[in-house]
Amino acid sequence: MSDKKPVFLVIGAGAGIGGHAAARFAAGGYHAVLARRSDEEGLGKLVGQIEDAGGSASGILLNASDDGTIEELIERIETDIGPIDTMLYNLGAQIGNRKLHDTPHRTFELGWRLGCYGVFRLAHAAFPHMVKRGKGTLLVTSATSAVRGNAGQHSHAAAMGGRRMLCQTLNAEFGPQGIHVAHIVVDGSVDAPDTLGKLLGDNWEAYKASKGDDGVIDPGALADTYFHLSQQPKNCWTHEIDARPWTDVAWWNDNPNPTINSTAANPSFSGPKGE
Amino acid sequence: MSDKKPVFLVIGAGAGIGGHAAARFAAGGYHAVLARRSDEEGLGKLVGQIEDAGGSASGILLNASDDGTIEELIERIETDIGPIDTMLYNLGAQIGNRKLHDTPHRTFELGWRLGCYGVFRLAHAAFPHMVKRGKGTLLVTSATSAVRGNAGQHSHAAAMGGRRMLCQTLNAEFGPQGIHVAHIVVDGSVDAPDTLGKLLGDNWEAYKASKGDDGVIDPGALADTYFHLSQQPKNCWTHEIDARPWTDVAWWNDNPNPTINSTAANPSFSGPKGE
Amino acid sequence: MSDKKPVFLVIGAGAGIGGHAAARFAAGGYHAVLARRSDEEGLGKLVGQIEDAGGSASGILLNASDDGTIEELIERIETDIGPIDTMLYNLGAQIGNRKLHDTPHRTFELGWRLGCYGVFRLAHAAFPHMVKRGKGTLLVTSATSAVRGNAGQHSHAAAMGGRRMLCQTLNAEFGPQGIHVAHIVVDGSVDAPDTLGKLLGDNWEAYKASKGDDGVIDPGALADTYFHLSQQPKNCWTHEIDARPWTDVAWWNDNPNPTINSTAANPSFSGPKGE
Amino acid sequence: MSDKKPVFLVIGAGAGIGGHAAARFAAGGYHAVLARRSDEEGLGKLVGQIEDAGGSASGILLNASDDGTIEELIERIETDIGPIDTMLYNLGAQIGNRKLHDTPHRTFELGWRLGCYGVFRLAHAAFPHMVKRGKGTLLVTSATSAVRGNAGQHSHAAAMGGRRMLCQTLNAEFGPQGIHVAHIVVDGSVDAPDTLGKLLGDNWEAYKASKGDDGVIDPGALADTYFHLSQQPKNCWTHEIDARPWTDVAWWNDNPNPTINSTAANPSFSGPKGE
Repeated sequence: MSDKKPVFLVIGAGAGIGGHAAARFAAGGYHAVLARRSDEEGLGKLVGQIEDAGGSASGILLNASDDGTIEELIERIETDIGPIDTMLYNLGAQIGNRKLHDTPHRTFELGWRLGCYGVFRLAHAAFPHMVKRGKGTLLVTSATSAVRGNAGQHSHAAAMGGRRMLCQTLNAEFGPQGIHVAHIVVDGSVDAPDTLGKLLGDNWEAYKASKGDDGVIDPGALADTYFHLSQQPKNCWTHEIDARPWTDVAWWNDNPNPTINSTAANPSFSGPKGE
Repeated sequence: MSDKKPVFLVIGAGAGIGGHAAARFAAGGYHAVLARRSDEEGLGKLVGQIEDAGGSASGILLNASDDGTIEELIERIETDIGPIDTMLYNLGAQIGNRKLHDTPHRTFELGWRLGCYGVFRLAHAAFPHMVKRGKGTLLVTSATSAVRGNAGQHSHAAAMGGRRMLCQTLNAEFGPQGIHVAHIVVDGSVDAPDTLGKLLGDNWEAYKASKGDDGVIDPGALADTYFHLSQQPKNCWTHEIDARPWTDVAWWNDNPNPTINSTAANPSFSGPKGE
Repeated sequence: MSDKKPVFLVIGAGAGIGGHAAARFAAGGYHAVLARRSDEEGLGKLVGQIEDAGGSASGILLNASDDGTIEELIERIETDIGPIDTMLYNLGAQIGNRKLHDTPHRTFELGWRLGCYGVFRLAHAAFPHMVKRGKGTLLVTSATSAVRGNAGQHSHAAAMGGRRMLCQTLNAEFGPQGIHVAHIVVDGSVDAPDTLGKLLGDNWEAYKASKGDDGVIDPGALADTYFHLSQQPKNCWTHEIDARPWTDVAWWNDNPNPTINSTAANPSFSGPKGE
Repeated sequence: MSDKKPVFLVIGAGAGIGGHAAARFAAGGYHAVLARRSDEEGLGKLVGQIEDAGGSASGILLNASDDGTIEELIERIETDIGPIDTMLYNLGAQIGNRKLHDTPHRTFELGWRLGCYGVFRLAHAAFPHMVKRGKGTLLVTSATSAVRGNAGQHSHAAAMGGRRMLCQTLNAEFGPQGIHVAHIVVDGSVDAPDTLGKLLGDNWEAYKASKGDDGVIDPGALADTYFHLSQQPKNCWTHEIDARPWTDVAWWNDNPNPTINSTAANPSFSGPKGE
């Protein structure tokens, strides 16, 4: 039961972006539904923290890559909890850098299932409800790989590039029906113990320290931006936004340490490109 | 005197985005400095409205395209009013659609002076102060022409395309020094009586009506997004964001009325592109 | 047997781009291998035309979306015909415009299989051979949907957006190993009787006529550009290129018939955007 | 006199791209007009080489940044030599990396004059002649800075970003009038002794050697691509294309040496981005 609160659903509710977004929307008056694949204890902890802070939340375990799971989840929430106002698709498909021949066919396919097909399935299942109500919001956490394909990112970039184009098609069809679709390009490391933390393992704390003060995105700060997007009135909707720490090099920029340095007295060529 | 409040400076403070941004930042605890080229009465009215609402503001007339004006303004504010925390460059260079041969050389140059060179001059004058303090924000109102050049937009698109690349260079050099640069692509018509309103003249009200409910960007809504960007912590900065009304076709999309229609039963080719 | 000629392989060899590319490469001294899903008669005709013109070609029927087909094809060519020098992945996934709810899950998946996964499988199977030889070229026919997602293109845009990012990852890993990957954005209708022609059916001739002189891309002209790309020396490789007829509106532009017209005497606002 | 040959005009005819393009078009049957700012001897040498190879060429010294020079050049050629068929705007504005405060106002302005305003002036002066004939081509050499603004590139990126958007507006208006506009993003160092060579000075040969075999763009190879673009029929025009050496990292990619390495056995996070 959502106590008449609008429902916020997050698929991919770990201790990073997903959990912080749930907490932010709960603090903003939503009933948060947190869905994740595993770790019932971790899930319960996130729900408990929201409730301890005076918010309202539910937790659900599901494997989003299995057929029918997302579809059943939407129906269950709409029937048992309340109308879904805002959804956050927060599943990634990052598996680290792998050469093409260390990327088996099924790995490439799984990347697509989580990174692209899941967004399609979520929209397919939930948008009919939102269209009937003439309103709703879909936030999609995305990544630098959605806008450029780096070496080693075969699976991830193909999935994320598809995700971005899909968000544009969804926006084109459903924006005029009152559904706000926003694609957030997270162009920096997030302080997310359940994903990046696990990927880096013992290197995690050292990695964060190496980034310096404010060198890793605080998922709570990102959650504030997600909440802001969800509150934009219909006359002023953002479809795409990026975010990174102040010390990070934006994805479109070279590393600022050129091989051939320049000085004001002797300005010279700066590096690998003619620019 | 800014009463110890942080200073928000807007260059291009008409009754649209500029004036609403000033009001929003004043409501958020800033002393707003509104600079515009002409109409002392209109300027006084905006300042008065902010003060009536309990905020703090000053108004200054200046012709930003004249050499030395922006530079003198920055020094005056830093000396007489207080340290500038956030600046909004809100001057446009839109002159409507003109064929190349209806775009004289001096028109093209003026577009660049207002659309691109002014941003450079503002950063040149103000960033040294901000660098000393290790903090500051530059918001730049931009336009669809910054990302694609439509027919008739020779002057405007060249100016805005330069503006966007300049914002990226400023961000690359000054982000790591604590200055947040954000480039906002306003991809829809704004309810701005002093600019678009004057451009359309007698057609203005009819134009707005033709866009339907929430069909024109409310500059107050956009100002909320500007304010949100200015409050992002250093670990989570947005450099680029877009905004448009729900019913507007995003700049990258075709008009959704294809010449050859499709149906589910008989899906067919959709229009000018093979996609 | 390729008579010691370098092998050019095209997957998706219809009477449009694929067949013309095969003919162009055969004329340029390659042995062309034409692979397509069906129509043995049509395939034989294309091979015959190449041979009649003094070229060398083979035809193979295969369903590229079936597991193992592309992989087996590569091994067969390398063993029986000769080392593959250049490959063209020319399969599309255009199904016309369909609303989200007229796009079943399996349609979306099939779009990905043909539009994205097939490129991955082809590279996976063929690149090891090319890496050993330190040279090779992969040309990928792509579409406007790879760079923007229009309404109704859910399946196609998601597949093509993934395809484009995949091409970037392949280029990043394999460029320095001597393999040239080029992604060609075909931003206009192609005179292709086997694909667009079938999609439009009885409307095909009327559609072409409506485009005017030179209003539809001649696949032979596009094949010349493909051939040029394949001949670029290693110091000057193109990764991305677009092409469209002169009368077509580029994908990033608005339709040039604004709702509110401008004249030189009275330049006014141009249409749906503030630009 | 052009001996009835179509005229190819290059503005910025040094020993790199400009000179090689002139030679390539002359070899392809054009009368080449080479315009450059200084070095009459060097200019004479380029013209002599073309003539020695059996081609036809003229050389003209002019300072393209001075008002009236480009305009007068066009009239002179049209009157005295022949109708201009194809033009290459090949002036850059690269001054090496300079911090904002090492970029004086007049440097920023000069960058714009050469990088952006010159293209506008050239089109303004020459397109009326081409429109009357219903045909013509404008090739514009561009740079990575047209698509992203790196640190230190304030002047260059603002100029090139404007140049790119200007090319799009020119294409939108003049494509349907038969004028082909192509914007070439040169995303790598060119073996150009008169520009990059001079910028790097004594480091030039060491720089080229450091890039390895085929590690610097051969301007002759690039000229072949320019020539190909100029020969595309009206139904298949390229507006934008990029080029770089095989070993260069494309502008959108990270340096491929991540700070935290991954292996197939232990795939891990790859570097500064979450991708």
